[in-house]
Amino acid sequence: MSPETRREQLVALGVRLLSTRSLEELSIDVLAEEAGISRGLLYHYFGNKRDFHRAVVRSAADDLIRVTAPVHDGEPLERLARSLDAYVGYVEESYAGYVSLVRAAASGDEDLREIYEEARAALTDRIFDAADAAADAGGVLESLRLADTAAVRLMVRGWSAMVEDTVIAWVREPQGVNRDDLLRMLAAALPGVLSGAP
Amino acid sequence: MSPETRREQLVALGVRLLSTRSLEELSIDVLAEEAGISRGLLYHYFGNKRDFHRAVVRSAADDLIRVTAPVHDGEPLERLARSLDAYVGYVEESYAGYVSLVRAAASGDEDLREIYEEARAALTDRIFDAADAAADAGGVLESLRLADTAAVRLMVRGWSAMVEDTVIAWVREPQGVNRDDLLRMLAAALPGVLSGAP
Repeated sequence: MSPETRREQLVALGVRLLSTRSLEELSIDVLAEEAGISRGLLYHYFGNKRDFHRAVVRSAADDLIRVTAPVHDGEPLERLARSLDAYVGYVEESYAGYVSLVRAAASGDEDLREIYEEARAALTDRIFDAADAAADAGGVLESLRLADTAAVRLMVRGWSAMVEDTVIAWVREPQGVNRDDLLRMLAAALPGVLSGAP
Repeated sequence: MSPETRREQLVALGVRLLSTRSLEELSIDVLAEEAGISRGLLYHYFGNKRDFHRAVVRSAADDLIRVTAPVHDGEPLERLARSLDAYVGYVEESYAGYVSLVRAAASGDEDLREIYEEARAALTDRIFDAADAAADAGGVLESLRLADTAAVRLMVRGWSAMVEDTVIAWVREPQGVNRDDLLRMLAAALPGVLSGAP
């Protein structure tokens, strides 16, 4: 097995471990024990704990971007709802790791913040990306008859913060709100949030 | 001057200092220098840096709750807009300190998180608080003909996360969006976010 393949396997193991524990709890020691190899060998692959965390968070962010990739058929808001469905599924499966990523980004680690912002931008940029839209149905903005302005971008960013906070709160404690209602509310909230755009 | 009054003065100084620097940058050393008293005396008042930070954040949260106190006249959404106006003003004046509070809460310090959640709950609870509403105009939910359900509470929580993220992003870089448009969009977003509630 090439060193590169071995490193990829270790990162994948790190991502799996991150789904049930926080970034602080994900140490080189924990990885070494789970992988059944020595700490020394892990330092050979990752240099230090911070590089290891960066590689794991990068990979987790790539997974998130991949699983929520837009579908290309259906009406714009229906496609948005399906992308949200995949996002909720991701947070359900990787709750601890995802919360840990959000917290790490907020805590001021610039590298982790950058990876997080990139993942969030990838999710929201799709709303503006005409290339993602099916040729006959147009994009989300087009269906709402909105131009791509700074005000609209600011509010779409706000909508994505709302989605993140709401989904984390719901996965932690659904309070009797069912999944379909959640998805419907989040999708309906986008045109709602944009309703006051000039 | 009583020790209690002196301590309050020092906390107020801490809050002022927090408006232009982050919590990490707000050390006992910085406070001692600005207050012109010894570090030893400060440890007498606060015990340790963490207690000092808790007192400052508690006081900043109280300020936020106070300046955004709901007004009692006008239509529900107009009152909401005025409360948002005060909130934006607070973030403008205390940008670094406020961002620092949000980050500290996200980073996992449970005490700071609790104070932050309490401040946020105080802001959103007003939307459900009939006692805050002018007798003739009713509350925000009433004006939207919505019942106080778990789904509605979840989405109001999401709206407040959106407001926080959007206002911080706008104060950092307005991108040509003017203040009135921002306030109008944030107020219109509440009924928008709730439009999909079952």
